[in-house]
Amino acid sequence: MQWGDCDPAGIVWYPRYFEWFDASTAALFAAAGVPNSVMHKTHRILGIPLVDTRARFFIPSKFEDELAIESTVLEFRRSSFDVRHRIRKNGDLAVEGFETRVWTVRDSGDPERLRSAPIPAEVIAQFRTASDG
Amino acid sequence: MQWGDCDPAGIVWYPRYFEWFDASTAALFAAAGVPNSVMHKTHRILGIPLVDTRARFFIPSKFEDELAIESTVLEFRRSSFDVRHRIRKNGDLAVEGFETRVWTVRDSGDPERLRSAPIPAEVIAQFRTASDG
Amino acid sequence: MQWGDCDPAGIVWYPRYFEWFDASTAALFAAAGVPNSVMHKTHRILGIPLVDTRARFFIPSKFEDELAIESTVLEFRRSSFDVRHRIRKNGDLAVEGFETRVWTVRDSGDPERLRSAPIPAEVIAQFRTASDG
Amino acid sequence: MQWGDCDPAGIVWYPRYFEWFDASTAALFAAAGVPNSVMHKTHRILGIPLVDTRARFFIPSKFEDELAIESTVLEFRRSSFDVRHRIRKNGDLAVEGFETRVWTVRDSGDPERLRSAPIPAEVIAQFRTASDG
Repeated sequence: MQWGDCDPAGIVWYPRYFEWFDASTAALFAAAGVPNSVMHKTHRILGIPLVDTRARFFIPSKFEDELAIESTVLEFRRSSFDVRHRIRKNGDLAVEGFETRVWTVRDSGDPERLRSAPIPAEVIAQFRTASDG
Repeated sequence: MQWGDCDPAGIVWYPRYFEWFDASTAALFAAAGVPNSVMHKTHRILGIPLVDTRARFFIPSKFEDELAIESTVLEFRRSSFDVRHRIRKNGDLAVEGFETRVWTVRDSGDPERLRSAPIPAEVIAQFRTASDG
Repeated sequence: MQWGDCDPAGIVWYPRYFEWFDASTAALFAAAGVPNSVMHKTHRILGIPLVDTRARFFIPSKFEDELAIESTVLEFRRSSFDVRHRIRKNGDLAVEGFETRVWTVRDSGDPERLRSAPIPAEVIAQFRTASDG
Repeated sequence: MQWGDCDPAGIVWYPRYFEWFDASTAALFAAAGVPNSVMHKTHRILGIPLVDTRARFFIPSKFEDELAIESTVLEFRRSSFDVRHRIRKNGDLAVEGFETRVWTVRDSGDPERLRSAPIPAEVIAQFRTASDG
């Protein structure tokens, strides 16, 4: 957390939680062996943009509070998947977020258009192995 | 929208939408005659932090796309209220967000604690006048 | 300026000024007829990244302060140029920034490498016309 | 580094480097035993805002590049001090920044005004001990 992540009320400005959710999803994929560079070069996707997200804020946090984030893929579907993020402060649930993301490629006919693509079985398998490990 | 609001996929990075939602809620209150300075000095509140938010993303946007945001308070309750934001690109709904915020003061006994307070009837009335105007 | 651009001390967090400098440089080029899309599609450059920047901060600003930014290209050289930004609050100089940017392309041999390229005479001419206008 | 810290050119958007400089200065003070909470509660200052900063950018960085930052207080004066930041990528100097900050309090007569105050000898001593240790 940075000084500028907190607002004049002295608490974390809420858009920052979404930045941390995004970083945590990226870290989750990297830990499963699918960092961004692999998404781009091996799987040739544009990324995994969101189509839906929700967050509830239970406890505000100040600069230098220690926060722990725990992120889990709840479900993989054909071309989309759900992630849940829980941020705890001293063990108490401070913020909970949910996101639905889509495995996204550029349309081969029109590179300006984005469209969904099936998530490779291999990626899902890498996740299963990582969570079982 | 800024160059750095867009990510390496060339589209707006989604936490930025929440920054714009927050700016739009602030502008909505300012337009109704309740800018942040009035909240602090006249109403002596800490702010209007969120307890819940949801957003759905329908169309991605690129740098230099023209976006229009339309924000409305859907409902005022005793100490909380709901805001809806709609971002349109060329008239099409690109992003829709909902937020529940709380009229918040520092606890008089413990300034480290935040608690809700009733929204002044005057503030709600100013909003009614602004939307009827 | 947004609520979250200000820090717990109640003043603008200084990295935000650089975001505004960047937005103002982009606006300056757009006003001269060289928006980002033209840089990419017509001139086929990657962008105009910085190689050097300096800023001095004279007066802090709070949320809802009205700031005006005035930006000027001080000098165009072969492939680099200097921009000066002045942010005023109530007419007083609050922040002054300087930046040196480079007209940058991807290396044709190695697309991972960036290198400078000569600024087209046409771009410089468009700027001259815009400032004389 | 986050996905959204990188821009559509695929490289870190330069205002982000200043965010990291700021975080690194905060970490430097925390490591010396002067975290933000101690600045506020023990030393009763508002913070250590910048009056001057400069940065040079030698090598661009992409998402998932590993960057290391090394920060040093170059000099303490009566109420201001200089910090140097060096960001390396694979050992090579990628970005170098300098900042001058001021030990800042609210004016007792006018809390809207900020003014400099002498840096306590104790703080400087803690730094000396930390760097010698």
